[in-house]
Amino acid sequence: MQLNRDFLPSLAGLFFYMNEKLENIKKLNITKPLLLDCKQNVSNFPLAYETYGELNKDKDNAILVFHALTGDQFVSGINPVTKKEGWWNTAVGPGKAIDTNKYFVICANVIGGCMGSWGPKEINKKTSEPYGLNFPVITIRDIVKAQETLLDYLGIKKLLCATGGSMGGMQALQFCATFPDRTFSAIPIACSTSHSAQNIALNELARQAVMADPVWDKGKYLKKKVQPKNGLAVARMVGHISYLSEKGMQEKFGRKLQEKADYEFSFDADFQVESYLRHQGYTFVERFDANSILYITRAMDYFDLSRQFKGGLVEAFKNQQTKFLVISFSSDWLYTTRENKDTVIALNAAGADVSFAEIKTDKGHDSFLVNEPEFLKTIKGFIDSMHTKFKNEKRI
Amino acid sequence: MQLNRDFLPSLAGLFFYMNEKLENIKKLNITKPLLLDCKQNVSNFPLAYETYGELNKDKDNAILVFHALTGDQFVSGINPVTKKEGWWNTAVGPGKAIDTNKYFVICANVIGGCMGSWGPKEINKKTSEPYGLNFPVITIRDIVKAQETLLDYLGIKKLLCATGGSMGGMQALQFCATFPDRTFSAIPIACSTSHSAQNIALNELARQAVMADPVWDKGKYLKKKVQPKNGLAVARMVGHISYLSEKGMQEKFGRKLQEKADYEFSFDADFQVESYLRHQGYTFVERFDANSILYITRAMDYFDLSRQFKGGLVEAFKNQQTKFLVISFSSDWLYTTRENKDTVIALNAAGADVSFAEIKTDKGHDSFLVNEPEFLKTIKGFIDSMHTKFKNEKRI
Repeated sequence: MQLNRDFLPSLAGLFFYMNEKLENIKKLNITKPLLLDCKQNVSNFPLAYETYGELNKDKDNAILVFHALTGDQFVSGINPVTKKEGWWNTAVGPGKAIDTNKYFVICANVIGGCMGSWGPKEINKKTSEPYGLNFPVITIRDIVKAQETLLDYLGIKKLLCATGGSMGGMQALQFCATFPDRTFSAIPIACSTSHSAQNIALNELARQAVMADPVWDKGKYLKKKVQPKNGLAVARMVGHISYLSEKGMQEKFGRKLQEKADYEFSFDADFQVESYLRHQGYTFVERFDANSILYITRAMDYFDLSRQFKGGLVEAFKNQQTKFLVISFSSDWLYTTRENKDTVIALNAAGADVSFAEIKTDKGHDSFLVNEPEFLKTIKGFIDSMHTKFKNEKRI
Repeated sequence: MQLNRDFLPSLAGLFFYMNEKLENIKKLNITKPLLLDCKQNVSNFPLAYETYGELNKDKDNAILVFHALTGDQFVSGINPVTKKEGWWNTAVGPGKAIDTNKYFVICANVIGGCMGSWGPKEINKKTSEPYGLNFPVITIRDIVKAQETLLDYLGIKKLLCATGGSMGGMQALQFCATFPDRTFSAIPIACSTSHSAQNIALNELARQAVMADPVWDKGKYLKKKVQPKNGLAVARMVGHISYLSEKGMQEKFGRKLQEKADYEFSFDADFQVESYLRHQGYTFVERFDANSILYITRAMDYFDLSRQFKGGLVEAFKNQQTKFLVISFSSDWLYTTRENKDTVIALNAAGADVSFAEIKTDKGHDSFLVNEPEFLKTIKGFIDSMHTKFKNEKRI
């Protein structure tokens, strides 16, 4: 792939084209006032969501899936907006580990996001312009509070399971801490109870890449129907490097050259890994809003359950009835096994019911999104057994 | 530190101010033709260098130090151009591990660099304009070949030692492979015999950050006396994240806030680690040329001793008389202990005299630049003993 930014305007154009498609997706207008952590009180905002499968009459088969940084509500099947596969098609669908023939799967686009939920690209009714940086800085707690309202709307008192990987796992932990009696079980995957310095640094790098692009213009680019595509693409490359393990990257790409026999002695993409990064970066601008990257990474960096509860993590998880399964991946250097084990230790210290699995894999942080049989078997086994237990408990 | 790019023009201005200071530094005009790996034949170009200590009459006390990506020839004392400390002041100086009271230390600015050696910001005599992207894409082999000429000029037939960390270590390995009889010993530190996919990816990220900045303008910015400071700063942040270990970063910064008691719910630097990265990024533009980052990272990515020698690494190191000490740092994730051990295995397979030390530290790749007593003791012990052996060998 050559260094060809000339075709980028058309890709960024796709972004605005897709925005128009957001009219036809499921949205709940949240009328219940929500006091954000930044002290703003908000109401009357949209939460876009999708559901898969059917809620049974006992209402004991609902699973709330939380998405990660660049995910959205379209977990399974074909995403109707991007026309690409749902981001968790490996795990969710008919007959899959999270079997939509048996379970009712719900996923909402996070507030601050850009797939129809209230976010920085939505129109601020007070100014009739996109919010941009006038959107409030939100937190993971704000995000899950908004989603709890969706459960009320769907008539679900208690979930069978709350789960997600990466930022989705943080939301699962936050959901349990904030609403200790709203889910029977939870699977926080490849995450932590607070962002490490290295993770804050990587997010800051992504933000700086966006903000360094003059097109970003302090977040006001949407008014001009442009995207800071160069900066956003660089931000996305940061992500893709951190999602793979060193060994996985070496096995996948090594020093293989991109359709050439020798070095070109230029700054075109000689190596396959360069080509991969450029492709990932420059297709991302089709589907994601640059300001959303700022807001969502900020929410991740602010996430700190220990800080939130005065008594620390033990306080955060006290009186939990939820049954936890914490999962880590051996080659994940973004949310290491050690960090995931710290979550397990805190849950244990709080007297919660918790089990833990480290999946051995070279696929790094991305492991939760790819076909990793041991991982899929683990979540399937846990959810199915939790369903039996949940039914029995309801019967008693 | 606030997000304040307004003061940046003055910092970038400093870069041009410092360029004027480069008139008074030591430079060798290389007249001997140099056939670059890209097949260009060049001659009559400057190689800027510095020396410390004195060459003894037996000429057996010369140590050639190779600098890393953003280093320069000013190893010790005060850098006369930037007025800051030399980059290896921890290791090199009177009474230090590499004792300039005993040894004659030489360091040259790499070609492709920006501290007086022939690089993309130098004037192309054919056009009377800075080279920019008309500068040839150079390799680590080109870099060390240019430096060998300096040894001829200084009258040094055989070095006591060739050493450097990171890209400096690659140069040390390349020097030994290309000139097997020009150094008695070598200490390649925290490096590898070829760049891994992850390292190529991180370098590509840095290059993309620079090239995404419209001020870069395909490398022609120097004509306008500007620097693509935003992109260059982001590129530098990539480096600083990779130079520290996850644990080291956590210990140094953790989640500490920057002179505030609580989150500000904004995109200013709330966390110390953000402030650190911004500072590192935005002071770097004072002293470094953006095109040099492109050229030097490219040279690193192209480095592959196994590819260079048809018979692979064993061929690269065959008939070595040089005595090697390979050093790695336990928490270095950029050039892991495993990669450094691979170099040791290759040297062993080629029948070379090689020893190896892994220094236990949390300081990551940066360890070779900081005060790490075990490391400094290791290089001092090796160099002093090599000096005795070298003298004895000369005597026989």
